[in-house]
Amino acid sequence: MKKVIVIGATGTIGKAVVEELGKRNEIITVGATSGQYQADISDINQVRALFDKVGKVDAVVVTAGALAFAPLAEFTPEQMQVGLNSKLMGQVNVALVAQHALKDGGSITLTSGSVSELTIRNGASASMVNSALDGFARGAAIELQRGIRINVVSPTLLTESLEAYGAYFIGFETVPAARVALAYSRSVEGAQTGQTYKVW
Amino acid sequence: MKKVIVIGATGTIGKAVVEELGKRNEIITVGATSGQYQADISDINQVRALFDKVGKVDAVVVTAGALAFAPLAEFTPEQMQVGLNSKLMGQVNVALVAQHALKDGGSITLTSGSVSELTIRNGASASMVNSALDGFARGAAIELQRGIRINVVSPTLLTESLEAYGAYFIGFETVPAARVALAYSRSVEGAQTGQTYKVW
Repeated sequence: MKKVIVIGATGTIGKAVVEELGKRNEIITVGATSGQYQADISDINQVRALFDKVGKVDAVVVTAGALAFAPLAEFTPEQMQVGLNSKLMGQVNVALVAQHALKDGGSITLTSGSVSELTIRNGASASMVNSALDGFARGAAIELQRGIRINVVSPTLLTESLEAYGAYFIGFETVPAARVALAYSRSVEGAQTGQTYKVW
Repeated sequence: MKKVIVIGATGTIGKAVVEELGKRNEIITVGATSGQYQADISDINQVRALFDKVGKVDAVVVTAGALAFAPLAEFTPEQMQVGLNSKLMGQVNVALVAQHALKDGGSITLTSGSVSELTIRNGASASMVNSALDGFARGAAIELQRGIRINVVSPTLLTESLEAYGAYFIGFETVPAARVALAYSRSVEGAQTGQTYKVW
């Protein structure tokens, strides 16, 4: 049984991760405004304060982060910054802090998304940020010390999100959040590092 | 014969690109402090001003952009911002402006690097930023209008840079800048889009 922080625990994926990992592990839930602890991970000082409060854990999972979607012809640098500050640097901040805060042999699991490769209209920032996360984990994995591992889960459109976002993903097969959650278990409870688990 | 803007024209790759593309095309050289025109591409307003001054061209090539290298254990968010602001958003700014400024059927060619996949110590930001560039081009390619194309050239360590950076790339095969320049020609003078040309 591991002690696992789930940041973004009340989102659609986060809830499924809490349920799946909670079968065998102790879960600490974190959200921007909900959960047992609150933190805005785009601010590394809040990430440091979070790990200080929670104390030593085995694993951290992040299923949080915002992205802007817009037609490429109208995309502004400011809209690009939404994903860079939130989904990308929020998760990178967690990794930078967690590498020192986790127990030996711990793990970091981040979330990217299928738009990295399965490109869609309005998705230039999503392709960029999701690819960046996959790349960061590849790069970071070889430098982590004390047996700490890092992986990324890359889900495609959730079945639960079909109504909200289906119009952007015409022709895509969806995956239930419960199936996506298995990939987080594979990362946290398995032994691989530097991987992107594509759930599509 | 195309009219091609090369941003970063006085760098090691830039010079080779100017020589290779210059055999068959008219080249306009741009640098931060050198070349026929000057622009800091991390500021989109300077990119807009550049295209306004130069007028209609067929293609833009970017071989400019800074990245920070540091051990993962010591990497700070501020160091991560170097690559995000310069190599990533500098090039993305050029693409966002060029999509409107280029002639019909024009092309945008950006530069990433092999550390996206061939990970090295101190290279977490490089893996992240280079992967982000490859992903951005994949995503942007399907939305560009008027027959405009976008590709990325991903070079590995240049033979010309072996003395300066070889210590970070022990065991890597190097490529001469002249060979890397061929990939830029393939992008500018070929017909593909959304590609990453790996020169390794």
